[in-house]
Amino acid sequence: MSPDATDEDVAHVVERVESVGGEAFVSKGVVRTIIGLVGDLESFHGLNLRTLRGVADVHRISDPYKLVSRQHHAERSTVWVGKGGAGNKRVPIGPDTFTFMAGPCAVESPEQTLEAARMAQSAGATILRGGAYKPRTSPYAFQGLGVRGLEILADVGAATGMPVVTEVVDARDVPVVAEHADMLQIGTRNMANFGLLQAAGDSGMPVLLKRGMTATIEEWLMAAEYIAQRGNLDVVLCERGIRTFEPSTRNTLDISAVPVVQATSHLPVIVDPSHAAGRKDLVVPLSRAAIAVGADGIIVDVHPDPETALCDGPQALLGNDLRELAQACRRLPPVVGRVASHERVGHE
Amino acid sequence: MSPDATDEDVAHVVERVESVGGEAFVSKGVVRTIIGLVGDLESFHGLNLRTLRGVADVHRISDPYKLVSRQHHAERSTVWVGKGGAGNKRVPIGPDTFTFMAGPCAVESPEQTLEAARMAQSAGATILRGGAYKPRTSPYAFQGLGVRGLEILADVGAATGMPVVTEVVDARDVPVVAEHADMLQIGTRNMANFGLLQAAGDSGMPVLLKRGMTATIEEWLMAAEYIAQRGNLDVVLCERGIRTFEPSTRNTLDISAVPVVQATSHLPVIVDPSHAAGRKDLVVPLSRAAIAVGADGIIVDVHPDPETALCDGPQALLGNDLRELAQACRRLPPVVGRVASHERVGHE
Amino acid sequence: MSPDATDEDVAHVVERVESVGGEAFVSKGVVRTIIGLVGDLESFHGLNLRTLRGVADVHRISDPYKLVSRQHHAERSTVWVGKGGAGNKRVPIGPDTFTFMAGPCAVESPEQTLEAARMAQSAGATILRGGAYKPRTSPYAFQGLGVRGLEILADVGAATGMPVVTEVVDARDVPVVAEHADMLQIGTRNMANFGLLQAAGDSGMPVLLKRGMTATIEEWLMAAEYIAQRGNLDVVLCERGIRTFEPSTRNTLDISAVPVVQATSHLPVIVDPSHAAGRKDLVVPLSRAAIAVGADGIIVDVHPDPETALCDGPQALLGNDLRELAQACRRLPPVVGRVASHERVGHE
Amino acid sequence: MSPDATDEDVAHVVERVESVGGEAFVSKGVVRTIIGLVGDLESFHGLNLRTLRGVADVHRISDPYKLVSRQHHAERSTVWVGKGGAGNKRVPIGPDTFTFMAGPCAVESPEQTLEAARMAQSAGATILRGGAYKPRTSPYAFQGLGVRGLEILADVGAATGMPVVTEVVDARDVPVVAEHADMLQIGTRNMANFGLLQAAGDSGMPVLLKRGMTATIEEWLMAAEYIAQRGNLDVVLCERGIRTFEPSTRNTLDISAVPVVQATSHLPVIVDPSHAAGRKDLVVPLSRAAIAVGADGIIVDVHPDPETALCDGPQALLGNDLRELAQACRRLPPVVGRVASHERVGHE
Repeated sequence: MSPDATDEDVAHVVERVESVGGEAFVSKGVVRTIIGLVGDLESFHGLNLRTLRGVADVHRISDPYKLVSRQHHAERSTVWVGKGGAGNKRVPIGPDTFTFMAGPCAVESPEQTLEAARMAQSAGATILRGGAYKPRTSPYAFQGLGVRGLEILADVGAATGMPVVTEVVDARDVPVVAEHADMLQIGTRNMANFGLLQAAGDSGMPVLLKRGMTATIEEWLMAAEYIAQRGNLDVVLCERGIRTFEPSTRNTLDISAVPVVQATSHLPVIVDPSHAAGRKDLVVPLSRAAIAVGADGIIVDVHPDPETALCDGPQALLGNDLRELAQACRRLPPVVGRVASHERVGHE
Repeated sequence: MSPDATDEDVAHVVERVESVGGEAFVSKGVVRTIIGLVGDLESFHGLNLRTLRGVADVHRISDPYKLVSRQHHAERSTVWVGKGGAGNKRVPIGPDTFTFMAGPCAVESPEQTLEAARMAQSAGATILRGGAYKPRTSPYAFQGLGVRGLEILADVGAATGMPVVTEVVDARDVPVVAEHADMLQIGTRNMANFGLLQAAGDSGMPVLLKRGMTATIEEWLMAAEYIAQRGNLDVVLCERGIRTFEPSTRNTLDISAVPVVQATSHLPVIVDPSHAAGRKDLVVPLSRAAIAVGADGIIVDVHPDPETALCDGPQALLGNDLRELAQACRRLPPVVGRVASHERVGHE
Repeated sequence: MSPDATDEDVAHVVERVESVGGEAFVSKGVVRTIIGLVGDLESFHGLNLRTLRGVADVHRISDPYKLVSRQHHAERSTVWVGKGGAGNKRVPIGPDTFTFMAGPCAVESPEQTLEAARMAQSAGATILRGGAYKPRTSPYAFQGLGVRGLEILADVGAATGMPVVTEVVDARDVPVVAEHADMLQIGTRNMANFGLLQAAGDSGMPVLLKRGMTATIEEWLMAAEYIAQRGNLDVVLCERGIRTFEPSTRNTLDISAVPVVQATSHLPVIVDPSHAAGRKDLVVPLSRAAIAVGADGIIVDVHPDPETALCDGPQALLGNDLRELAQACRRLPPVVGRVASHERVGHE
Repeated sequence: MSPDATDEDVAHVVERVESVGGEAFVSKGVVRTIIGLVGDLESFHGLNLRTLRGVADVHRISDPYKLVSRQHHAERSTVWVGKGGAGNKRVPIGPDTFTFMAGPCAVESPEQTLEAARMAQSAGATILRGGAYKPRTSPYAFQGLGVRGLEILADVGAATGMPVVTEVVDARDVPVVAEHADMLQIGTRNMANFGLLQAAGDSGMPVLLKRGMTATIEEWLMAAEYIAQRGNLDVVLCERGIRTFEPSTRNTLDISAVPVVQATSHLPVIVDPSHAAGRKDLVVPLSRAAIAVGADGIIVDVHPDPETALCDGPQALLGNDLRELAQACRRLPPVVGRVASHERVGHE
């Protein structure tokens, strides 16, 4: 309460809190009075406490999310991707493994996609990424192949035995994407597209939820809660850089988000170093950092010919860089107590 | 080009630029070579210049948007909202007028909406705002009345003669919203929801496009370009605060965005001081600043009883504050060479 | 307290709080316990509450500053600048007036400074600004004329009757700057240079304290508290833009900071639109916004020949722009209930 | 040039560039003309190109720093800290080693400092950190022991054989700090305190230059250039987190800054995970990330009794956390091709 709040102001707040079934504990000091509220957070939403006379400020103490919180689900979760079987192995993403996902930023042709998938697989990747729907800042830029791209991805997934993750940008496309892919990706621009989150939740498919480039970790977990609330807890979070004032990288990879999320939520969390940096030369060091900080996986752009890529060519790996990354993905996980997912998948 | 780029590297860049119909001008210095490109920006998209050997950096010189740019359309535009007639006057938003839009954050009931509309109208507002679909960070918060809310808005608009602007959050809802409202609002969280932008463009209705809370002005104009590209140039931009490190306001109102947009684009631009500040006590001073900086209008939350508001009560005006705002909306526009829109509308 | 905190954890916190003379009020809920602390904030500094077992988070409720707070000094202050007398009039900065300060970014020569001062004065400015010590990002850029610059400023101030404000960048220079100037400016890069703040406090001179380009309002007021703690309450705050992700302006003018500061602190607060924008074409609209939002003054760069300016030429006003600014400084203050300072000074 | 620039505008720019000895290459397109400048960057400072008629924008292509750039000094540097001898070993910081620096945030007493130093040393640290001068946001917070703190540090350094790094906050204190310490630290708040940078440069001592919490990497390297320009190239850069909108960590550790700096500058770069996170539970994972990304060292807060620490207790390590960190500092460096500095120092 503000220093000039009267006893009636305090009484009025207490009365309103109690009117929705909450409890209010009043702590009176020489200068200020503090009122601690206890009760169901949702019931307090309608009170507009900040508008009450004498209220100086309101601080929320408990977390606003529930289903994705570690508070009631202390053990960290593992999400399995893929239907199982020779043509589509089941791959775990969770606390015991380190899962390497790779593929082209955009699906351009069957040949390019297959070649990128083979590159990814021989570097140790176990899940194939690739974009059929591309949200682009410019309406004049390449927007993806759409359903044709989904078909190519499904074919290449079957040919290589890798489950497929691909982005969905519109709630109306969820059914067709779910039909062709093994995991739905929700991109950074759509993290707060609540209709899309709910549609992804309803699909029952594993979801890869990228962090909004300007979302706090709490908002990101609230977005995951939208999916979970539809009964779908197979959500993997993906840190992909946030917008800051630093211009030398496209975004600033918030590496601390990995342990912060792991302390707060039971959901797996992976890192996308390609989109965070937007620069090929940073992908390998940032991938090493991601493994060492304890990420449950990484997702990386590879392309057989970055010079002709239709999307984000400057950040796609090939050749030596990819070999170096493959080596890091083999050598670092054991040092931080994890098994690389391709070893786990190989022995199932 | 980087200092160690070879003559072949330079020649290769020139060749690629020419291969898509562009021209490349080479400026050779002692340490560095600079290549100036001239041609169609879109044809350069596929070149991935940054991936070419020897290229150190790429700077775009010209604007990436076209239809919304002032470059080919020097005169600033006026957008008219409303069908015309006694029950729904046509209201201009543009360089000669100052347009005051107000109403409740969320439509809660016919009574609350009508009362808020009457308050807004007597303060000088000529367009009624009100939310039927509310995108909320928490899945547990009030999400709006939906179609029932649209009906209430349409009724209150007819009763007061005010055209109605309301938010649409999902491309699937564009037809029903267009049927009941006079202007579609695209909110800050959906500024980069490209499917929604295209649907709003296709509707042919005037669109109020809020700036993404973390969008640069260029990205915001690119979002407007998505709408314009569908043949709809009736777009009004709305600055509503950006995300910064400053915690004392919900967002930081980027007041400079108004003259920056006006120098770059012919589209009208207004200011939302309520959502920028998130604090009632700042709405009047920020509204005065918006008028003085040269905004084409403002949009403000009012509510007959903020204490019971279902959404954003802490920022809704009433009583003295609203009277003070009404006074500012009468006295300041003439000082900066504008006519208040209610005077213009009254005499049509 | 975290949900798994034990009764002993709570008791230990209470005990520690009481050991430094504070009071602790315990509010026990079903899931969480909240402890409200009442007492002297400083005595709590040494407790390291966050390190105690069971503590989940600590929120400070009261303001950390005292002398500059409005809490114990409700009336807003006026700071007077200048020694008085024909050659150096006393100019007020405070809630009743609007004070226009202008001059060249850097002092380059007696002629350039005098010419800029005459331009400023005929546009209505009553305090002369000018830099003798320039903190520059590059060690290779012009760093100011130093003592020679101070002498020029003092001469031009005497010739025009305008008190002088100039920046001091090093605690060792405070005495020599105080000898020549009427007000010490502490720049954005030095807002957290605590030794310099204390030296400025000790000088007893009026101080113009610019906001750190990345400082929160609270940190800015804490910097003012450093000056005030030395017995000097003649501090004028200056909002000059903060660092954000938006590239179209050099900084983002946080116009809301003006009413936020005025609600919290009794100190006057002015706006620097030139350094905020870094663009000449925005100075006039942003100055209008500053007056309308209720700023106690503005400080603006003018230069007789921006093309040859040694510092920040692109933002200096002259000719038509300056005339337009002069007009705004005459016409807008009365609309917001203020007298322009040159009228007040003229009649003393 | 802007689209409406005339031939005379172009000719005037060319003339001005040539007047200071530069070359101007004109590339004329259908819509726009681009002028590429070649010459000495400093000579262009005075031109104020942005103020010339017809100039739309100016982009700098080459780096503004020289002495710290890798462009003319391709090999990465090693900085040696310490005078040599049994009581003060020389410790390398550079591309071949991984250097672990630790100690208490603030020196409080001889006993506390010695105990923290022993903890640090047994965990593998080879350089002792500790603060005698503490820049604090509040004038009412503990500001350090000053000279007495320096004496304690020197004694503990001699007793343990560890060279000492400590912060200097005022140019006037450089001599006394240089007398007692082996390396001067310049803190985040003073990164742009140019007088202090120059004094540190003049001292000839190794300097640990922390990144300003809101400085771009380029500004940080320009600050290092200020030191180098005084003939002192023994500068080690320290990434310690930047200010962003994310509230769950005190700052956001910009892990990408490490490879970005290493690609641009020959100076060593280390990471401070304690001040970046401000949370003890993140120090170990972020330290692992720092080693894996390729940092040349880390600097960490340790304290024998964080609960009673006078400064930043919540982030100080002890017990299990410190053992876990010691293990990471032994096991990870070899995986990324480095030797831990304590092994190197041990064998000298």
